[in-house]
Amino acid sequence: MGLKGRDIVSVTDFSKEDVDSIMRTAKKLEPLTKEGSDLLKGKVLGTLFFEPSTRTRLSFETAMIRLGGSVIGFAEPGTSSIAKGETLADTVRVVENYADILVIRHPLEGSSRLAADYSSIPVINAGAGSEEHPTQAFLDLYTMWRELGKVDGLNIAIVGDLKYGRTVHSLAYLLSKYRVNLFFVSPPTLRIREEVSGDLRKLGTKFEERTDIKEVLPMIDVLYLTRIQKERFPDLAEYEKVKGYYRITTELLKEAKGNMIILHPLPRLDEIDVAVDATPHARYFKQVFYGVVTRMAILALVLGAVD
Amino acid sequence: MGLKGRDIVSVTDFSKEDVDSIMRTAKKLEPLTKEGSDLLKGKVLGTLFFEPSTRTRLSFETAMIRLGGSVIGFAEPGTSSIAKGETLADTVRVVENYADILVIRHPLEGSSRLAADYSSIPVINAGAGSEEHPTQAFLDLYTMWRELGKVDGLNIAIVGDLKYGRTVHSLAYLLSKYRVNLFFVSPPTLRIREEVSGDLRKLGTKFEERTDIKEVLPMIDVLYLTRIQKERFPDLAEYEKVKGYYRITTELLKEAKGNMIILHPLPRLDEIDVAVDATPHARYFKQVFYGVVTRMAILALVLGAVD
Amino acid sequence: MGLKGRDIVSVTDFSKEDVDSIMRTAKKLEPLTKEGSDLLKGKVLGTLFFEPSTRTRLSFETAMIRLGGSVIGFAEPGTSSIAKGETLADTVRVVENYADILVIRHPLEGSSRLAADYSSIPVINAGAGSEEHPTQAFLDLYTMWRELGKVDGLNIAIVGDLKYGRTVHSLAYLLSKYRVNLFFVSPPTLRIREEVSGDLRKLGTKFEERTDIKEVLPMIDVLYLTRIQKERFPDLAEYEKVKGYYRITTELLKEAKGNMIILHPLPRLDEIDVAVDATPHARYFKQVFYGVVTRMAILALVLGAVD
Repeated sequence: MGLKGRDIVSVTDFSKEDVDSIMRTAKKLEPLTKEGSDLLKGKVLGTLFFEPSTRTRLSFETAMIRLGGSVIGFAEPGTSSIAKGETLADTVRVVENYADILVIRHPLEGSSRLAADYSSIPVINAGAGSEEHPTQAFLDLYTMWRELGKVDGLNIAIVGDLKYGRTVHSLAYLLSKYRVNLFFVSPPTLRIREEVSGDLRKLGTKFEERTDIKEVLPMIDVLYLTRIQKERFPDLAEYEKVKGYYRITTELLKEAKGNMIILHPLPRLDEIDVAVDATPHARYFKQVFYGVVTRMAILALVLGAVD
Repeated sequence: MGLKGRDIVSVTDFSKEDVDSIMRTAKKLEPLTKEGSDLLKGKVLGTLFFEPSTRTRLSFETAMIRLGGSVIGFAEPGTSSIAKGETLADTVRVVENYADILVIRHPLEGSSRLAADYSSIPVINAGAGSEEHPTQAFLDLYTMWRELGKVDGLNIAIVGDLKYGRTVHSLAYLLSKYRVNLFFVSPPTLRIREEVSGDLRKLGTKFEERTDIKEVLPMIDVLYLTRIQKERFPDLAEYEKVKGYYRITTELLKEAKGNMIILHPLPRLDEIDVAVDATPHARYFKQVFYGVVTRMAILALVLGAVD
Repeated sequence: MGLKGRDIVSVTDFSKEDVDSIMRTAKKLEPLTKEGSDLLKGKVLGTLFFEPSTRTRLSFETAMIRLGGSVIGFAEPGTSSIAKGETLADTVRVVENYADILVIRHPLEGSSRLAADYSSIPVINAGAGSEEHPTQAFLDLYTMWRELGKVDGLNIAIVGDLKYGRTVHSLAYLLSKYRVNLFFVSPPTLRIREEVSGDLRKLGTKFEERTDIKEVLPMIDVLYLTRIQKERFPDLAEYEKVKGYYRITTELLKEAKGNMIILHPLPRLDEIDVAVDATPHARYFKQVFYGVVTRMAILALVLGAVD
């Protein structure tokens, strides 16, 4: 089964073959980021951001435009009278008349699954509550593959807020399709959720939980950092305690392998010292570029413009 | 006189021949919603929303994009420093240098007429205060015609807030060009304005005013519901009294003709029970699609791309 | 050295030859405002407005679209989670992966120079604090040239807020490349900054400072008015004192030469009586049109689509 016409709600909906097809297509379309293309000419992407996320929104818009398509939508709930007192189901049944594919970011978990159920056109989940953010996971994977040449066999540390960070869950599930060694590094209060680690155990994914980043640093090929997100903390005092717990500095990186790469979903606050930007480890801005490429692949595949 | 170069401020500005031309053109352009087109390639639509209305804005944007054109503009006054302390006349004389056609939504009655007076390019009224909303009326008419095959001879009930609802006035004037039987159904405090009913009487339009929806339900071909809009009520207590006065349920619909269709300008709140969505009567989401089509026709005609 | 690939941060970065090339290109591209073009097909402009400015933003967007390009971006900081706690340097290194050229408006002086330093793609300053606004100056110059047929030899009065008005500084520096006679007319508290007048003296630009507009009116070819901008005043009482100090009326204009032209960066508040709009002196709306044209030239030159 190809990707055409499918919703992108959770990485768990996709087979390894599906994921490989996204990776291969992304690589094939990569040159079009500069050349442009008419692959999606006449197609319209609807961006429904019930929660602002300029970065993700612009990444999708760029992907659509680079393939020759167009974009309509709203960038935040304030601009959106469409949302005022209207159910998400109704909003979806309105905007499906405007676009060929929808990208939805919404504060509530389950929102994009619900949208997909009501929509006659494909729906892409661009983040829902502290749940999944599948296209971020796909672009993270693509970045590892493009920068290191492989995924199988990699030692990958995922560091920071593993409890509330929505990118982490999608990424962990996605990596479970490959033969990787995962290290989940977090303060005790922000450990990966039991439901996620339980699932990974069932899937046979090798992982360890740690609290000290220094222990894993010499072993890893990928250091995946996440922001400790204030807005995910019910208790502010707890936030203040763990903030900056794993701050990456050039000093710390002396323990790392020479070709270890650092990824981050951005925005980066204090987690990575700016001096690190100049090291060959830093790939978090290149990752942004791969994000456009990966989303181009997803849009083109789902809209049936490539197979 | 064709539509080319004309402003779309009020339905009363148009002859029956004009209206028929919009209907015919809409039907002709309908396939382009999926195929896309280069009919308006190089043309720019300026959307000036001094009052947010995501639904109407996205409908116009989609119509423009499906015909190959582009869109600039602002979605709400906050984003619009252009509006800060500047007269509408000045704003119009600025943006007419950017676009080929303008769509304006503004909280004040008379605003789009004023804009049209100052603008050297065509102006489309997308709602002004509790006044007219002509393109909504055109799309309502198009929906009736497409779904029922004719307009003459239809029995049409317009239900809900007939005093403050801006879509109602435009629709009533537009339907007065056809041989229809209108039923205005509302609570006594929200009766259609005397100036509108007076005009209809002069035009020879057959209409009756009712308060009980059950009386008219067995007779009608079209049930046009409107939202009781809180923001149009000077007195909140009055709003609370009439809210949900005419709630449509599957139970109530047992009294209706089998091929009776329900329309609604949306958003729908409590006026229509969600169980109604699954009945063959529900056409309010199809109506959204026809909205794009009708606006494509209007843009193409006014910009002279078809005749 | 051509304009290709260069940043547009300050008018002082450009030689007279560069400026002439912008003027010539603008005139050449002027017909494309109506015809449209594919000159920048496939190119993407990123608009980063950390401070709202609908007028400038729409002008750039129109310029890009008229040349066949596309636009992504944000219109105000609220919509922009990209800005939330992220350094400008990081934001730039993200969005340079989305666009081919960036336009930045930011409340802080020095911001667009910093953005240009970090960006691998060209950056255009669309206003930074009370500092320069170079594309406004280029369009002002273009308007004078197109409306009066020359720049050398013109007597130009720049009137109003010469201290805080950011358009004034860029314009004064730009005009210093030509043989013009400048009159700076302002209340004593809003005199042109010493650093600017000092620079002009060194450049050999002929200028006089005045407080009474009537003295200069009979001598000038161009009356360049600026708004007394409330938001630039640390002290509101001072604002109230000077507001409307130089209000232009048809009565006052009796003293002017017949072919004297009035320019204004807009929005106009009380500075120009609306009765002036109907006189042949008024060119401030035509100036808006020339703004699109000038920005088309800048985009096309910097992106290397013309030379």
